[in-house]
Amino acid sequence: MDTNTVRPRLGIIGEGQLARMLALAAAPLGIEVQILGAGAQGPAIWLAKQALSGNCNDPAQLQRLAVLSDVLTLENEFVDAGALRTLEQAGHTLFPTAGSVALVQDKLTQKETLSREGLPLPAFRAIASPGQLHQCAAEWGWPVLLKARRNGYDGKGNITVRGAEEVGPAWERLRGEEQALYAEAYCAFQRELAVVVTTGRDGSTVCYPLVETVQQDHVCHLVRAPARLPAATVTAASRLACEAVAAVGAVGSFAVEMFLMPEQTLLINELAPRVHNSGHYSIEACHCSQFENHVRAVMGWPLGDPDMHCRAAVMVNILGQGSAGPGHLQAWSEALAVPGVHLHDYGKEQGRWGRKMGHLTVIGDDPGEVEQRALQAAALLCPDRQIERAS
Amino acid sequence: MDTNTVRPRLGIIGEGQLARMLALAAAPLGIEVQILGAGAQGPAIWLAKQALSGNCNDPAQLQRLAVLSDVLTLENEFVDAGALRTLEQAGHTLFPTAGSVALVQDKLTQKETLSREGLPLPAFRAIASPGQLHQCAAEWGWPVLLKARRNGYDGKGNITVRGAEEVGPAWERLRGEEQALYAEAYCAFQRELAVVVTTGRDGSTVCYPLVETVQQDHVCHLVRAPARLPAATVTAASRLACEAVAAVGAVGSFAVEMFLMPEQTLLINELAPRVHNSGHYSIEACHCSQFENHVRAVMGWPLGDPDMHCRAAVMVNILGQGSAGPGHLQAWSEALAVPGVHLHDYGKEQGRWGRKMGHLTVIGDDPGEVEQRALQAAALLCPDRQIERAS
Repeated sequence: MDTNTVRPRLGIIGEGQLARMLALAAAPLGIEVQILGAGAQGPAIWLAKQALSGNCNDPAQLQRLAVLSDVLTLENEFVDAGALRTLEQAGHTLFPTAGSVALVQDKLTQKETLSREGLPLPAFRAIASPGQLHQCAAEWGWPVLLKARRNGYDGKGNITVRGAEEVGPAWERLRGEEQALYAEAYCAFQRELAVVVTTGRDGSTVCYPLVETVQQDHVCHLVRAPARLPAATVTAASRLACEAVAAVGAVGSFAVEMFLMPEQTLLINELAPRVHNSGHYSIEACHCSQFENHVRAVMGWPLGDPDMHCRAAVMVNILGQGSAGPGHLQAWSEALAVPGVHLHDYGKEQGRWGRKMGHLTVIGDDPGEVEQRALQAAALLCPDRQIERAS
Repeated sequence: MDTNTVRPRLGIIGEGQLARMLALAAAPLGIEVQILGAGAQGPAIWLAKQALSGNCNDPAQLQRLAVLSDVLTLENEFVDAGALRTLEQAGHTLFPTAGSVALVQDKLTQKETLSREGLPLPAFRAIASPGQLHQCAAEWGWPVLLKARRNGYDGKGNITVRGAEEVGPAWERLRGEEQALYAEAYCAFQRELAVVVTTGRDGSTVCYPLVETVQQDHVCHLVRAPARLPAATVTAASRLACEAVAAVGAVGSFAVEMFLMPEQTLLINELAPRVHNSGHYSIEACHCSQFENHVRAVMGWPLGDPDMHCRAAVMVNILGQGSAGPGHLQAWSEALAVPGVHLHDYGKEQGRWGRKMGHLTVIGDDPGEVEQRALQAAALLCPDRQIERAS
């Protein structure tokens, strides 16, 4: 390392927990992190060398970040791909590219793209009127899922329509006259699975272990790594994930969520063009985390080993509660007394009900013991929530 | 986690790489980190929520940090214990305490304290004149080590005096008329060893694995974890380390450096009242790193598991070079291509010869392969330095 070291500068569009964990992974690599975020108190703000306050969909604000950065990346799929394209047109380096984000952020476009590649998906269709939703139900049967094409997450922007009488209210609640919607056939899945795949700028790819995700109220509650499934299913899921991210021209860490259907068949649920909640376990459990590999990928550096160095890991999200809990410090201390617990507080100021406030991970040799410890610690941090042994 | 979460604030006195790695460990625990440092560009500065610029030995500057912090700690033993005591007298919470720092930062006092507890040390004595150094040599034989009682590190403040004719020059070089000196008998040790011990505010203690440290030019070059020595030696070293930190009333992570003498006997070389270079491997290799455990300890929280989750780890320091190397980005990328390498760049602006600019760690199952990879990556980052397989 010489005296004229110039350190690379990574600009992250977004200020949330994913930006925060990217910043924590980038710092040891000697990367100077810049953040553009809407608020002054976002989780990533104080871990950035420079934090800019501004609208992430505004090309002028993105440009302010770009001039401070050698490479740009993002922590969510909501940044308008058109605004991102203006950065590329101005000569800035952005990964994932605006083109990839465009293919993923509109969920109908995403499904059309994956479908064209022959990848297995639930039935789906653009919906321009309530009548078209009735038509879907006639073909697929009830329930039918009605979804916004853009900006949905954690169950927001999605409605399960269980019968003809619910079509009108669902259409109104999702403002069908104003925003573009699509429908999906309901899948009676056995389990929900996910894989993170990191793709380098040179096209090299590493695939993280297949994990099982358990949702509560449409929010990820718990992740078990690795998923305990037949080897053929694991291989098929990894291959599917790699094909899916290739179909959208991914660079960086992308997540592929899947449904495990009867007889071990797989359907792709959706892609995220970014690091993902289902990959948080990789911080402690894998040789190189999804965050470090994302950073390596977008910088154009060699990718690290995605394999686990332990037999089992369980991640549990710490969600905001409505009432006053036992107080931060006391609960924190009690949770840390559970052997092997790794806590991740996102530093959010406002802890409204159901908001992702942090997560915890336990790693070890015995999957049952690992999960029991993770749930025990989570119950101390979220005493008002139902934290049960997930099925 | 409730809506009225108030996050604990940790004030770190110092802005160097140890403060930086403490800050990186504190952030996931939800702790807001404040830094007091002399410069505007120190490694820890941009990872702090607030960074204050000021002299760490000035009680008024320390007070500025204290009012922003619930708990104070430090990253080096050079902060004047008297200045630290003013913080305690003003009611602030500081760990390690000013009393512990006082017992450690004056190396003669440190040795007297350990000696009173019956712990094994090389012969030592206060030196107030060149004549007293001659007297030591008459008793112990040449060479004799002449050392400053305070502020020495990495060979600075220490001189090996090899014969009577070197006494005068050594006395002058260490400014014996101005600063307090002491002498130590030279130890023909077989190996240098180190142990990090973390002590909680409640007196609970965890002991990290015994490691072997290899020095080059008085600077730590490489650390092998664990040291491959007979079980009885490992047990004896751990017990010695725990007794040593207890003797100075440690709270937090302290390092105990030792000499392995012929026939597997041990002598204590010195203590550091802080996280330590010999414990950096713990970030990747141990369930809970020396940094996280230090933070847990000073906050009054339960300590984490110090054991390794892999069979072998090797850490190599990345030292500054004099000439222009291959450039930061290219070398970084090449080093990351070595399988399993974890890089830690401290973000220092000036890379003068021999300065600790970063470190790298490799973990794995086979000690020989782990060390070979670590040295291979280090050679890419420091091509102008002799990076050899340490004996």
